[in-house]
Amino acid sequence: MTPSHNTPISAIQEAVRHFRDARDWRQFHSPKNLSMSIAIEAAELMEHFQWLTTDEATRLPQNDPESRQAIAEELADVLIYCFSLADILECDVAEIVFDKLAKSGKKYPVEKYRGRF
Amino acid sequence: MTPSHNTPISAIQEAVRHFRDARDWRQFHSPKNLSMSIAIEAAELMEHFQWLTTDEATRLPQNDPESRQAIAEELADVLIYCFSLADILECDVAEIVFDKLAKSGKKYPVEKYRGRF
Amino acid sequence: MTPSHNTPISAIQEAVRHFRDARDWRQFHSPKNLSMSIAIEAAELMEHFQWLTTDEATRLPQNDPESRQAIAEELADVLIYCFSLADILECDVAEIVFDKLAKSGKKYPVEKYRGRF
Amino acid sequence: MTPSHNTPISAIQEAVRHFRDARDWRQFHSPKNLSMSIAIEAAELMEHFQWLTTDEATRLPQNDPESRQAIAEELADVLIYCFSLADILECDVAEIVFDKLAKSGKKYPVEKYRGRF
Repeated sequence: MTPSHNTPISAIQEAVRHFRDARDWRQFHSPKNLSMSIAIEAAELMEHFQWLTTDEATRLPQNDPESRQAIAEELADVLIYCFSLADILECDVAEIVFDKLAKSGKKYPVEKYRGRF
Repeated sequence: MTPSHNTPISAIQEAVRHFRDARDWRQFHSPKNLSMSIAIEAAELMEHFQWLTTDEATRLPQNDPESRQAIAEELADVLIYCFSLADILECDVAEIVFDKLAKSGKKYPVEKYRGRF
Repeated sequence: MTPSHNTPISAIQEAVRHFRDARDWRQFHSPKNLSMSIAIEAAELMEHFQWLTTDEATRLPQNDPESRQAIAEELADVLIYCFSLADILECDVAEIVFDKLAKSGKKYPVEKYRGRF
Repeated sequence: MTPSHNTPISAIQEAVRHFRDARDWRQFHSPKNLSMSIAIEAAELMEHFQWLTTDEATRLPQNDPESRQAIAEELADVLIYCFSLADILECDVAEIVFDKLAKSGKKYPVEKYRGRF
């Protein structure tokens, strides 16, 4: 299948699981290790923006296609480990995201937090 | 819609964007800030496993439904910021994940890395 | 003793060790757990600057004594876990810092990296 | 001077400042950027333990001198950025560490937290 915005979550979940199981890596995927992996990949993502001002960092992926590609790959790594953790926790990614948005929506009501944090 | 494994990526992307824009928070969502946010939420996820052995951490979500719920919420926070970053980079989450799995598949060939890392 | 810039490293190392041993926490201080703890506290430090521009973040501790105090406490937490890890690795903090500065000094020669990174 | 446990904090602080100023890097050392740097180096430290059980991670620096050296260097990187941040915040490292230990000592009284967290 050609991945696209219409790809169902289940197809990504299945691809991530297949990658792991083909290498027999399930044994290393404890929640403790995967939470570290997510944090490690998040740090590699941050590295691209480490010494830039917020404005320079915003322009970087716009002006430099190679950086944009490298940043997208680091983001993909974070996502792959998130899907890996969802898999072993037997969480549905769509469900936990929608549930959290609903909960945060109550914590940060629109009328009070518009333009503020 | 009821979220499920069949939810398309576009529906999650749209929900995350709607949450942000209802609060006029796009102005804070620079790639630098979002990369920090992903790392911060990843750390909150790690906190659940910080002092546990790998085995204890594996049993925690299995044995303690409240912890499992809290862990799923932290994972959702990481995912929400990942989708937020994908949005401003105009990346298709399915595409970058499939591309990265293909690239990693060449870097870690099955026959050489089975059961090893 | 009154802590000051003249406090020897050994006095900090000893205070951190004493705090840990009085609570019998040595058993939780594996290098894996302490590396997570350092990362978790680093994330709490980042949280203060998460949504600010680089300029706003620079002014924050200058203009807001309460924030400055909270930031200093998070920095102290990172340092305490760094000293805890140095303790179990039996590393001398002064030695590893001087050694690394010497190594980085060769990697980033002054004439080539002045004002650049 | 030969660094040792008796090295005063001020000597480390001075060496870190000198390394930075010789390269004219003060301009990049905003608190936001340095908090990211601390987190990035903390992640590189975690990477050594990412896929190991807590026991394997404990044995790694004991059994493998090269790993121990690499781990010590990553720890030094975290410390160097901590000292860099202390410098621009004009914090005395000894003072903030002793103050935080005193505060945590009240939060975690010995009699209640011995062997527990």
